[in-house]
Amino acid sequence: MSETELWEELIALPVSEGCVEWIEVHGLHDVETIDKIGRHFAIHPLVMEDVLNTTQRPKFQELDEYLHFVLRAPFAEKTPDSRLTQPQGIVRDENHLKGQVALRFEFEQVSILCGANWVISFVESSRDLFAPIRERILKGKAPRQKQGADYLTYELLDLMVDHFFIVLEEMGDSIEFLDEALVRNPGPPLLRQIHLFKRQLLYLHKAVWPVREVIGSFERCDSKLCRPQNRLYLRDVQDHIIQVIDLVETYRDLVSGMLDIYLSSVSYKLSEVMKVLTIISTLFIPLTFVAGVYGMNFEYMPELKWRYGYYMAWGLMLTMVLIMLRFFRAKKWI
Amino acid sequence: MSETELWEELIALPVSEGCVEWIEVHGLHDVETIDKIGRHFAIHPLVMEDVLNTTQRPKFQELDEYLHFVLRAPFAEKTPDSRLTQPQGIVRDENHLKGQVALRFEFEQVSILCGANWVISFVESSRDLFAPIRERILKGKAPRQKQGADYLTYELLDLMVDHFFIVLEEMGDSIEFLDEALVRNPGPPLLRQIHLFKRQLLYLHKAVWPVREVIGSFERCDSKLCRPQNRLYLRDVQDHIIQVIDLVETYRDLVSGMLDIYLSSVSYKLSEVMKVLTIISTLFIPLTFVAGVYGMNFEYMPELKWRYGYYMAWGLMLTMVLIMLRFFRAKKWI
Amino acid sequence: MSETELWEELIALPVSEGCVEWIEVHGLHDVETIDKIGRHFAIHPLVMEDVLNTTQRPKFQELDEYLHFVLRAPFAEKTPDSRLTQPQGIVRDENHLKGQVALRFEFEQVSILCGANWVISFVESSRDLFAPIRERILKGKAPRQKQGADYLTYELLDLMVDHFFIVLEEMGDSIEFLDEALVRNPGPPLLRQIHLFKRQLLYLHKAVWPVREVIGSFERCDSKLCRPQNRLYLRDVQDHIIQVIDLVETYRDLVSGMLDIYLSSVSYKLSEVMKVLTIISTLFIPLTFVAGVYGMNFEYMPELKWRYGYYMAWGLMLTMVLIMLRFFRAKKWI
Amino acid sequence: MSETELWEELIALPVSEGCVEWIEVHGLHDVETIDKIGRHFAIHPLVMEDVLNTTQRPKFQELDEYLHFVLRAPFAEKTPDSRLTQPQGIVRDENHLKGQVALRFEFEQVSILCGANWVISFVESSRDLFAPIRERILKGKAPRQKQGADYLTYELLDLMVDHFFIVLEEMGDSIEFLDEALVRNPGPPLLRQIHLFKRQLLYLHKAVWPVREVIGSFERCDSKLCRPQNRLYLRDVQDHIIQVIDLVETYRDLVSGMLDIYLSSVSYKLSEVMKVLTIISTLFIPLTFVAGVYGMNFEYMPELKWRYGYYMAWGLMLTMVLIMLRFFRAKKWI
Amino acid sequence: MSETELWEELIALPVSEGCVEWIEVHGLHDVETIDKIGRHFAIHPLVMEDVLNTTQRPKFQELDEYLHFVLRAPFAEKTPDSRLTQPQGIVRDENHLKGQVALRFEFEQVSILCGANWVISFVESSRDLFAPIRERILKGKAPRQKQGADYLTYELLDLMVDHFFIVLEEMGDSIEFLDEALVRNPGPPLLRQIHLFKRQLLYLHKAVWPVREVIGSFERCDSKLCRPQNRLYLRDVQDHIIQVIDLVETYRDLVSGMLDIYLSSVSYKLSEVMKVLTIISTLFIPLTFVAGVYGMNFEYMPELKWRYGYYMAWGLMLTMVLIMLRFFRAKKWI
Repeated sequence: MSETELWEELIALPVSEGCVEWIEVHGLHDVETIDKIGRHFAIHPLVMEDVLNTTQRPKFQELDEYLHFVLRAPFAEKTPDSRLTQPQGIVRDENHLKGQVALRFEFEQVSILCGANWVISFVESSRDLFAPIRERILKGKAPRQKQGADYLTYELLDLMVDHFFIVLEEMGDSIEFLDEALVRNPGPPLLRQIHLFKRQLLYLHKAVWPVREVIGSFERCDSKLCRPQNRLYLRDVQDHIIQVIDLVETYRDLVSGMLDIYLSSVSYKLSEVMKVLTIISTLFIPLTFVAGVYGMNFEYMPELKWRYGYYMAWGLMLTMVLIMLRFFRAKKWI
Repeated sequence: MSETELWEELIALPVSEGCVEWIEVHGLHDVETIDKIGRHFAIHPLVMEDVLNTTQRPKFQELDEYLHFVLRAPFAEKTPDSRLTQPQGIVRDENHLKGQVALRFEFEQVSILCGANWVISFVESSRDLFAPIRERILKGKAPRQKQGADYLTYELLDLMVDHFFIVLEEMGDSIEFLDEALVRNPGPPLLRQIHLFKRQLLYLHKAVWPVREVIGSFERCDSKLCRPQNRLYLRDVQDHIIQVIDLVETYRDLVSGMLDIYLSSVSYKLSEVMKVLTIISTLFIPLTFVAGVYGMNFEYMPELKWRYGYYMAWGLMLTMVLIMLRFFRAKKWI
Repeated sequence: MSETELWEELIALPVSEGCVEWIEVHGLHDVETIDKIGRHFAIHPLVMEDVLNTTQRPKFQELDEYLHFVLRAPFAEKTPDSRLTQPQGIVRDENHLKGQVALRFEFEQVSILCGANWVISFVESSRDLFAPIRERILKGKAPRQKQGADYLTYELLDLMVDHFFIVLEEMGDSIEFLDEALVRNPGPPLLRQIHLFKRQLLYLHKAVWPVREVIGSFERCDSKLCRPQNRLYLRDVQDHIIQVIDLVETYRDLVSGMLDIYLSSVSYKLSEVMKVLTIISTLFIPLTFVAGVYGMNFEYMPELKWRYGYYMAWGLMLTMVLIMLRFFRAKKWI
Repeated sequence: MSETELWEELIALPVSEGCVEWIEVHGLHDVETIDKIGRHFAIHPLVMEDVLNTTQRPKFQELDEYLHFVLRAPFAEKTPDSRLTQPQGIVRDENHLKGQVALRFEFEQVSILCGANWVISFVESSRDLFAPIRERILKGKAPRQKQGADYLTYELLDLMVDHFFIVLEEMGDSIEFLDEALVRNPGPPLLRQIHLFKRQLLYLHKAVWPVREVIGSFERCDSKLCRPQNRLYLRDVQDHIIQVIDLVETYRDLVSGMLDIYLSSVSYKLSEVMKVLTIISTLFIPLTFVAGVYGMNFEYMPELKWRYGYYMAWGLMLTMVLIMLRFFRAKKWI
Repeated sequence: MSETELWEELIALPVSEGCVEWIEVHGLHDVETIDKIGRHFAIHPLVMEDVLNTTQRPKFQELDEYLHFVLRAPFAEKTPDSRLTQPQGIVRDENHLKGQVALRFEFEQVSILCGANWVISFVESSRDLFAPIRERILKGKAPRQKQGADYLTYELLDLMVDHFFIVLEEMGDSIEFLDEALVRNPGPPLLRQIHLFKRQLLYLHKAVWPVREVIGSFERCDSKLCRPQNRLYLRDVQDHIIQVIDLVETYRDLVSGMLDIYLSSVSYKLSEVMKVLTIISTLFIPLTFVAGVYGMNFEYMPELKWRYGYYMAWGLMLTMVLIMLRFFRAKKWI
């Protein structure tokens, strides 16, 4: 393939002293080229296997000649029923909500190999994840201390952690929206919504914890590939990922709190309905009995002959209603 | 700006031997001045970034020339529907409670930089947080051991931890109030109240744990900036923050206990209502049936012709009521 | 004050070689005297502050010249509605129970300072907590190894831990009593009782964990004030406190199990009632309908003219009842 | 006492080189003799106190001259209403079950003191716990490596751990039995049964965890009393106790799962009953209304005079029933 | 036995330099042969006991001359009612599902002994578990670094961990299927299904955690039997097992989420039914009362004589219906 040939020419170019070579690989379908890169930089076969396997758990490995990172960044799925159209959907039309799905993520796996003066990044899809960094590098000279393969790796990691913040910010808005909907309009679609949120947060929780481990191991590792003057930057990413974890856990607690409120308010509402309805029918059942009694066809029923029998029957029924209302009120049922 | 100029003159003043220079910055809007301060004391750019970013998690960093603290103290929001007016609100008018909000906090981020003979404190808003300390310093001479940048830092930390106590004391009162309301007046507004409390306590919980870490790290750090004779003071703040955590956790347990009582007492009350109402209607339904039978218009119904048929029908109905009441009593339903 | 003068004379007395001076302070109101004691033994001002502050968390501090303990022992409150009268209360009169309160504790804070040959104990109230130890000392000579400030401190700690056992034993009796009441007489007063128990156990749980820490730190500390031959005694107190914790946790698990049984048995009982009542009314409603049909006043209703129409109506109704009963039985509802 | 004298003669016998002296004490009532044993082997008074106190928590202590173990083994109580008669009980007669109690345990406290060439075992009751080991010793010569006080101690510990397996096997059978009963016959007696199981498993859980600690400490201790070649045996007991813990935790999870199934299936069953009954009564109520209308006695009711009025009323009622059935079916209620 | 003789000849063959001898034992019934193998390789009796005991917990032991692994791999049971036929089963026929059982596992215990140049694997049943590895070895030469007893052990472990993935993949499909069924068709069979899943996941959870420990201990052990160049392979298995654990925990969380959705949607559905039915009967009860009133047989009932009395009665009843509907709508009940 011509692409591969082009690559071969490029890789043959000598790297000037003090420079860092950064190879970005987008998409993992061209196994042959990736394999060549691996052999050029003498990457261990197990590591190359990890690069190509897109169901990896985030991890950090310190090898003799290079460091190996596997990370997964979340991206909001751009589907027609995405979150941006949802909120209005609920307000305008409740039925519309039923089939809808909450904010969904897809995770993009990124492998980073950081050598002495080279960095290789492998992105699962063709998404141009690291464009901002590339642009900044192309635009101008970075200060002296912001050079080196380890600083570039820090930048790549930081950008990936930032994607968690973006996703969490969107979730934060959705949670606030749900919270309001909870007051206005509790119902099964909302319940389904809350459960979908809970599940998404579970996935995020599972995704973010190993990232902390990865960055923690990187910070603690004493490889010569990570210069001491860049430790402070690593601690900064570490702080960010802890903030992400904090946020995820807070959201999880909030969402389960919402679930509790939902369930108890739905059950309270229903039981209020039942109580009122039961009181109404209970009020009328004895009255209907009285009416039934005077509807009987016995030949000898003295009341039926009385002049004011009919009015007395009404009086009796009213008295019964009043007694019952009093009793209910005394018991604080109404 | 003239303010900045003034500041430049001030900073140019020589610091006398054995003295500690304390710069208080209120509000983080004047980025330019803050930047100048940073450059004057040779603060690392990442640290300055942290100072200006007000969504930081509490943290402690030990750098070569100074120590860096980020802390967040809670303050009760002074809104018209604050807690102070609430209790009476519930007593007087139940509907008033519905739209009300429980005790809310805002968090004030404070960054403290503690150098060899200087301390800089950055407060997020213009709130005069450290007035009591400033007054104490201006009023007179502190004993010898109560001098030095590390002792001043201890005082600032202690004051911030005290704000947690103030907030928790107010919460304690509110919880006691809720507990009484639970006996007198359970209902959905109370439920919402309890849930809001739970959420506030969740936020407090998330806010207070990292503070413990911060102070613990400060106590354990072996920087020359923290003199051994002041360790005892640090342990004292550490004790305070553990007491705060204890209190928060106790309140959280109390509030979830209240939630359980609320839910089970509401459901018990409702089921009692339903039972009594159902018993009443069950008593009358068979009677209505009897009345219906003798209301039928068949030509040949011997009972209708009997002299005492009507009274016998009454007798039958009374007997049925008595049997049912007996049955209910035997089953312990009434 | 003459008391203070008396104290000054006492403190001036020389302490004979090999003896341990033990000063007991009951009540913390006489701040002046306490202050004098502090200055006499050169206690650090922060420690004296802890002694006077009665909302301390249990803690242990090792200082150069002395050890500092803060502990809190529980005492059953002696109120008219105490636990001793309660059990019978439930049996005799259920309404009496409603306003009653379960076994309540108050905590007594005790600070102990243990120097080389002196021990000072500060008790929050005027309760004569350490009378048994004082009596044992006054009564006779203790064996050689049972002397020294550290052994006396061990004895004071052991006595305080014993108070947890006393309180837990009373709780154990109450739990057994509740367990029986659960079978005989479930109802809201019992629920409230169980919740109060749960809360008391929460307080005990919070109180007992730091005590373990205190004694563990004492055991592990390598101060010269704690002689090796007394380590075994400390391990003994440690064992006791672990037993206390075990007991508290077991009781907490038992009480939540009781809560679960209570809730599920109450709901089962109610649903049984509802089912039977609903079956009764469901049986009669179709019958009432039949009676209603033959109560209609149409001119042309052939059944009404039949010779045995009335008996056929009865037959129809009986058949309906039998079919429904069969259906219910087939479905295992009755 | 002659028994004591006999014992004194025995103890006076010289122990031959390379032999291990094993003293078994059954029952702790003869305090005097136990005291003598203690003094003979120079046991610390605190240890002797632990031996006599039968409410000890399992523990391990390494003293200079001997090792001290306290353990508690479970035994199924041999009561008339034991588990063996229970299963059939449920099948044959449900009422019989009500008063019955699930498999109960009693715990037997055993203290073991292991010296250089002597072992003393104290069993709480007169139960002959270690008969199998005694028999094996009396029967023949054990191989060289299976001698020594430490190996004997291992055997005693192993036998005690085995008692947990026996009890757990019985529980496993009972759990399987309960699981089947859950499908066939859910009801309050089963609920009580499940709760009793849960409680028994809680007690087992509390009993088995400290045993792990005890054996772990024994394994890790570097006393000269525990020879390295016997470490493998200890690891074996350790494996056994971990298996016991695993089993207990699995059973606890299974039992709480059963509780959940029980509660949801009972509530589902009840709600199904309620739904069908409510549908029946809802169907008849409008019909009864129609019958009531034509039972009115107005003088001018044209329908009453119609030739086919009666049949039209029937037609109206049938139509209503069909419409309602259709509506219910469309809503998937029936 | 001839088999044993054959084995004896085989074992007598000298092992060539640099080769690894691998003995596979299928089934543990031939205790005699297994015993001979044990004696030939000088395996400790306790280890041989573990090999033969098939209720072992996964474990790793480092002995002087060899390493000992006990592992348990899950296999889907091949029963007629296996998962593959189930999904359609639910779609076609709901009753069919009732007696069905969710995906069940059996665990196969495998013991591996890894010496300097020999490996022995014991498989519980006659299942040919390691066929793929045997085939790969027989097919051709492995590269130099992929030789040695430790690499073979790694391969055996990896294959066993892969079986967890196979089982989990099948579970993943089933969970997705359940999730869809939850929307279409909630009911007690589904509930039972979910609970069976929960239990299977509990067993998997209990099975997979100790495997992590085993592999972790192997990785950390510093035995000379495990060459440093193979550490990377071990870390790879470790990653796999952590992924398995992650998956199991995610599935457990998903399944409990499904349980919650199931319960709340069933209860919501039921309460909706009850509400509508109750509203219908509540609407008709007052109407029936009115009809009953005009069905009374009093001689003096003026309304009965009115020209339009009958129509007025209808008007009254319609008005009552409208008022009630309005009231219900105002309360948002319908």
